[in-house]
Amino acid sequence: MGYAALTPDSLPARLGGLEALTGRIGPAAGWKVAEVGDGNLNLVFIVTGEAGAVVVKQALPYIRLVGDSWPLPLNRAFFEYHALVRHAARDAGRVPEVFHFDEEQALIVMRYLSPHVILRKSVVRGVQHGHMARHMGLFLARSLFRGSGLAMGGKALREDMALFCANHALADITENLVFSDPYFDARLNRHTAGLDGFIAPLRADRALRIAAQEMKHAFVAKAETLVHGDLHSGSLMVTAEDTQVIDPEFAIYGPFGFDVGMFLANILLGYFSQSGHEAASGARDGYRAYLLAQFSEVWAEFAAEFGRLWRSERTGLLYERSLFQDAGDAAGAEAALVAVLRGIWTDAMGFCGVELHRRILGLAHVEDMEAIADPARRWPCEARALEAGRIIAVMRHGLAVGDVAALVQDVERSVAR
Amino acid sequence: MGYAALTPDSLPARLGGLEALTGRIGPAAGWKVAEVGDGNLNLVFIVTGEAGAVVVKQALPYIRLVGDSWPLPLNRAFFEYHALVRHAARDAGRVPEVFHFDEEQALIVMRYLSPHVILRKSVVRGVQHGHMARHMGLFLARSLFRGSGLAMGGKALREDMALFCANHALADITENLVFSDPYFDARLNRHTAGLDGFIAPLRADRALRIAAQEMKHAFVAKAETLVHGDLHSGSLMVTAEDTQVIDPEFAIYGPFGFDVGMFLANILLGYFSQSGHEAASGARDGYRAYLLAQFSEVWAEFAAEFGRLWRSERTGLLYERSLFQDAGDAAGAEAALVAVLRGIWTDAMGFCGVELHRRILGLAHVEDMEAIADPARRWPCEARALEAGRIIAVMRHGLAVGDVAALVQDVERSVAR
Repeated sequence: MGYAALTPDSLPARLGGLEALTGRIGPAAGWKVAEVGDGNLNLVFIVTGEAGAVVVKQALPYIRLVGDSWPLPLNRAFFEYHALVRHAARDAGRVPEVFHFDEEQALIVMRYLSPHVILRKSVVRGVQHGHMARHMGLFLARSLFRGSGLAMGGKALREDMALFCANHALADITENLVFSDPYFDARLNRHTAGLDGFIAPLRADRALRIAAQEMKHAFVAKAETLVHGDLHSGSLMVTAEDTQVIDPEFAIYGPFGFDVGMFLANILLGYFSQSGHEAASGARDGYRAYLLAQFSEVWAEFAAEFGRLWRSERTGLLYERSLFQDAGDAAGAEAALVAVLRGIWTDAMGFCGVELHRRILGLAHVEDMEAIADPARRWPCEARALEAGRIIAVMRHGLAVGDVAALVQDVERSVAR
Repeated sequence: MGYAALTPDSLPARLGGLEALTGRIGPAAGWKVAEVGDGNLNLVFIVTGEAGAVVVKQALPYIRLVGDSWPLPLNRAFFEYHALVRHAARDAGRVPEVFHFDEEQALIVMRYLSPHVILRKSVVRGVQHGHMARHMGLFLARSLFRGSGLAMGGKALREDMALFCANHALADITENLVFSDPYFDARLNRHTAGLDGFIAPLRADRALRIAAQEMKHAFVAKAETLVHGDLHSGSLMVTAEDTQVIDPEFAIYGPFGFDVGMFLANILLGYFSQSGHEAASGARDGYRAYLLAQFSEVWAEFAAEFGRLWRSERTGLLYERSLFQDAGDAAGAEAALVAVLRGIWTDAMGFCGVELHRRILGLAHVEDMEAIADPARRWPCEARALEAGRIIAVMRHGLAVGDVAALVQDVERSVAR
């Protein structure tokens, strides 16, 4: 049979013969199926049997958020599967285990994460996760370093790049919704009433529009490594101890700084949303400080692990040891590392800035802000995120890592007050 | 039958049934075949019949320069064919017309260029070609702009990128021979006796080694457009009026600046070789001035045409008009163009510097220098090219277009004197 979308009713009959499931959760006769997808694109089922549970994720031939008027190829499940396999190999245990993949049905059966929660929901509630920042710094460094020409030869790199080039339909979404739509009056945009006074000057800012297009150019043409492609706080499932990275269906070859910057932006979205969630002014001060510490810690862990891999696993075609260590110039490799990390940071801040904008002005918003029910409380939070993003993107070349916390605190104190 | 290398004797029997040939040059019974390949990689036949002549180029399964100890895939003919087709569409009349392509035989039948000569031979002889610089500036701008995300949508761009990713074997040659081998004692290197005193400090220059690896990183990971990949003065056939670009078998997605910088470097190699060719000191002063003017004119024509295309054909996914012209900020698009051209120039100078080095220290040298029979006359020419390349690569971020001529003249006057 060809592709057909699953339903809770049809799922046991259609997947009940798979040893990958029955061997793990028991016979289909005892299965309970719940559809829990709250994302923008797919069907997600939790299938519980007598011996356990698994998740079944199936792509739909359109964007769920918009409806069947916006078709989207099913092969995104293929890219998600291939990204999950690579992520598992590059940072063991940080992505859910895959039990079964069916390309025709665009369907992945994977580990049911429990008692994990989506990180973004914790940020809205003000809940801390003590290991998340370290886990994410390590994941970013390991997945990005090991997927690049720093660790891979040219043949393997270009063959993998060709495979993921075919994921252009999902890249197209990013290209339009992230880098362009927020900066003009695009059809799919929406924003909170009250923000207009901030949007007009932002769109009039020529340096910002150029910066956004420079970041789009980098996203399109800087094929440095396999990026997750959609790494935000809704793509992380966390407990007090564990962090799991999910949903890499946007995976494509892109810049080192892309995942880093998008993820850091989502920490800042959480930061700027806090004044919309706190019971009284200042009640979330501690959580704000925690989020800024998370921002710094993700980068610090990333940079430290990237440096460790640079020293121990730089076996690819770039910055070869024959030109540095083997030539008696180990310090030269350290100098090159400083420059590479500086380039990643600069790109990351460019992506961070545009992500702050598109989550407030574009189609896909974030629960951090959407959960603030009163628009009159929401728009000032969003205005601050817009202003911070504008400064960060435009000033990315001169911005030091330590500058961001002070900048963000100043914007929080002074904008829309 | 499977692949078999042609010989002058077997060619008429094997290709005599092709209407693409017989319709053009007459029946095979009257053909004369001469093998004329003097390149590094392939067989090249001129096939002359009663009604005309064509060129038959066939890939060999190894590198001709080295022998069958270095295998190289036949599919490079496939990439050459696809690059020729794209170049013809992007800059009409600047590449030889293709009459027939046989993928299995790795064979392309194309226009016989006559009375064209290889540009490099003219440079050795001191012969000027009044239209070459303008033709090349236009070719570079048109082929690179129209092959990029400035002119193409994301789907077309990524599909084409995937196709050329498979040309990794030829990219691997560039990656090793251009960016790495010259900077350490690699097995395939060779250089003129007398140069040692210049090589040791060059290889000890940490900033240069880092610059070379930054350019390698750009070559590998900056997939901005389809580049020719091997654009030097041996890849141009010229007359007094015409310029033809040949041999794009190294075609791959790479940085805008790659072809530009490699080609400009070869003009400088010609410049530094003149003192080895002139009958008396200063006899080629006029030709030296001509070459420096060519350098400037290639860039000026490139930048002017790139700007014209930027204004008239910017229909791709980058720097969309909706964000600039349509938003009432046409000047913003001009500002972005300045930044893009500055980035291309900077990359081009990085590639220019490493090309100057690898043509003197690596495996593949150039006739400009090799034709200087006396090593005692040759090495000072080469030493000057090495020093100029080192300054250009390391200082590329701060180098203005107008700086290069003065720099090169100063090196010519002061180094190895």
